[in-house]
Amino acid sequence: MPHTLAEKLLISHSEVDDASPGDIIMVRCDLVMANDVSGPVAFRQMERMGVQRVFDPSKVVMVSDHFMPAKDARSAALQKRLKSWSDLQGVYYYGQGRGGIEHTVLVEDGWIVPGMVIAGGDSHTCTYGALGAFGTGLGSTDIAACLAFGEFWQQVPGTIQVEFTGHKGSFVAGKDLILAVIADIGVGGGANAVLEFVGEGAASLSLDDRLAVANMAVEAGAETGIFPADEVTARYLDRRADREWHPERSDPDASYVRKVKIDLNSLEPLVALPHSPGNVVAVSEARGTKIDQVYIGNCSNGTITDLRQTAEILRGNRVHPDVRAIIVPASQKVYRQAISEGLIDVFVEAGAVVSTPTCGACFGGHMGVLAEGERAITTTNRNFKGRMGSPLAEVCLANAYVAAAAAVAGEIVEPASICSEPVR
Amino acid sequence: MPHTLAEKLLISHSEVDDASPGDIIMVRCDLVMANDVSGPVAFRQMERMGVQRVFDPSKVVMVSDHFMPAKDARSAALQKRLKSWSDLQGVYYYGQGRGGIEHTVLVEDGWIVPGMVIAGGDSHTCTYGALGAFGTGLGSTDIAACLAFGEFWQQVPGTIQVEFTGHKGSFVAGKDLILAVIADIGVGGGANAVLEFVGEGAASLSLDDRLAVANMAVEAGAETGIFPADEVTARYLDRRADREWHPERSDPDASYVRKVKIDLNSLEPLVALPHSPGNVVAVSEARGTKIDQVYIGNCSNGTITDLRQTAEILRGNRVHPDVRAIIVPASQKVYRQAISEGLIDVFVEAGAVVSTPTCGACFGGHMGVLAEGERAITTTNRNFKGRMGSPLAEVCLANAYVAAAAAVAGEIVEPASICSEPVR
Repeated sequence: MPHTLAEKLLISHSEVDDASPGDIIMVRCDLVMANDVSGPVAFRQMERMGVQRVFDPSKVVMVSDHFMPAKDARSAALQKRLKSWSDLQGVYYYGQGRGGIEHTVLVEDGWIVPGMVIAGGDSHTCTYGALGAFGTGLGSTDIAACLAFGEFWQQVPGTIQVEFTGHKGSFVAGKDLILAVIADIGVGGGANAVLEFVGEGAASLSLDDRLAVANMAVEAGAETGIFPADEVTARYLDRRADREWHPERSDPDASYVRKVKIDLNSLEPLVALPHSPGNVVAVSEARGTKIDQVYIGNCSNGTITDLRQTAEILRGNRVHPDVRAIIVPASQKVYRQAISEGLIDVFVEAGAVVSTPTCGACFGGHMGVLAEGERAITTTNRNFKGRMGSPLAEVCLANAYVAAAAAVAGEIVEPASICSEPVR
Repeated sequence: MPHTLAEKLLISHSEVDDASPGDIIMVRCDLVMANDVSGPVAFRQMERMGVQRVFDPSKVVMVSDHFMPAKDARSAALQKRLKSWSDLQGVYYYGQGRGGIEHTVLVEDGWIVPGMVIAGGDSHTCTYGALGAFGTGLGSTDIAACLAFGEFWQQVPGTIQVEFTGHKGSFVAGKDLILAVIADIGVGGGANAVLEFVGEGAASLSLDDRLAVANMAVEAGAETGIFPADEVTARYLDRRADREWHPERSDPDASYVRKVKIDLNSLEPLVALPHSPGNVVAVSEARGTKIDQVYIGNCSNGTITDLRQTAEILRGNRVHPDVRAIIVPASQKVYRQAISEGLIDVFVEAGAVVSTPTCGACFGGHMGVLAEGERAITTTNRNFKGRMGSPLAEVCLANAYVAAAAAVAGEIVEPASICSEPVR
């Protein structure tokens, strides 16, 4: 029976010989991940199951990233708990100063290769689809079961084929591709399905752009989003990952629940207006929207690519006096790279602040939370009401060019109005 | 009548011809400063006084620094209030990305010159004594009066002469000098008095070391601490301050309430153990004390000098796996300088995190708060119970060499055991 890539990965990680969308199967994890918010809850659930040890310490990674450095005694205690549990279980622990945001460090340190199945205690575990892996976010009780037994139940999802045709133009980035998808199929359009990104536009995307796209598959309601592994993937993994992998693709005659085409040639930079990632307009339609804060970072768009785009716009410009601009590299490695390229100096000279890698303000945790009546534009992945602080604040989502341009102008503008042509 | 430097500054800023310690006089402010915590309270008090406008907008500065970037919606609202009030009043406002910690930015941007009287809505306003100014921290109601009328009442303090003899040795810094003073006179020893720092040991101190010393005068209970302006002061101000100033000194026959001598030749690096800045021991006596967190920063010791000292120790070393190391440059300028000297790269390579300039964890605000049962060593100025988070956490104070050495060792050690000789 022909299968899509996602179906193949799930079946190959189960005891069943075959399965179809809608079937519920048990799926083995190649990796289980949790963080300082989801981990401690999962540990308690595992204890309640009466299980003392994780199924395989080499397949478990813990990352402190949500409240880092600790914003209060409670978040310090969560970090402490995550570390002591990891030490006890003998699992790898990314503590403060050792990594950064979970999805970024797991990808950049070579934990993830194509074909893997990863269960993560974080909804943006779908990010690993950028590398042709099946990553899915589970609640802490399911994560507890994964830690204890190394498997989770999964209803086999159907697959939505998303074909990117053509090539993206100036100031268009991965963020715009996924916003265009969400605008097309809606925030519930991916329910019970996987987004599979194909076409020449997908093949030509850098890995950082793929991370941005896969990361927001969950904002379309999808189980995950996945790019078939190719030369770009292989080049990225070349000096990072020891683990063997084989490229896998959907069968040519596989069944899709839906096919969507996005023409990159005509795609403009987009903005998701409050309070939904599906409330998408072209940046030109949002022009003039006043901004109080700009936040560039998070697991979708805190890569070196995003920081280079930010620097293109900020170089030689000043952050508008009414704007607080916060730039958060997604990992210590990205931060060091940005220092070495002179980007951090550009940001500070422009009047932005640069924080230590953390999930930070994306989820309203700390490091740039919004007051009542304020409006932010961010490169993060969620703009739900109250997501970044006060429920009376507003969040707009955009790529780093658009966010940085708003930092300079004090309002949403086309990036081309700040900087005539990106050099990268 | 002969007078000490502090008496001269107060009398010259009053309507009285002469005054003696114990007299209560009204003192004119050359500058009034407040921050995101103290400012909004003072604004409300000023409104209650029925005063609409500040006495002189050119003599008022507001600095957002305590919760920056905002840790929650409430702290974001405080920043917003500080900015909108400053814009309305036409006073200079240091917002996020524009400055850093209040005392650091006011000094480095040339707001402070010798002979000035500064009223600050922050207890460490005494820091300005490093430049031969009289800086004193006032409560928000007094700051409201200063904003409205440009003056405050002050009981003329006596002066304690602190003479530093000799020269400090390796791994000894400004922090050790002031800890030695507090150990000598006690945390209440400076009550109703000013500390005046003199002697060849004082004259040979860099301005950054003087800032560290003056900053903690209040931890001895003193009204302020003051270094008579000299060549070091003049060189520092040369390209910073436009304002004219004249060096002023105590009269040779001035009366002191007490004279204290500290011999720098025999001074070792010190540590103030929990829970008092007066609980001071030599670092060798604290050797072996386990550490969970190291925090290098704040208004006393977040200067480029402190970061260079930190880098001396961390270069080529790794932060101990059980330690969270947080380094917080005191201002955007210090941060840029540290980037240009390659220090930030040293910190990140060693496994420390570098945060954006803020008061941060010093007062338990955010950016490295402690959990129950944890112990930190920090370059900050207060180690009161609960100061940095849980009341069941412990804080030790030390210079940057000692703090950085503990980051590497995971426990308090002599810096010489990590790095044989500082190069700066």
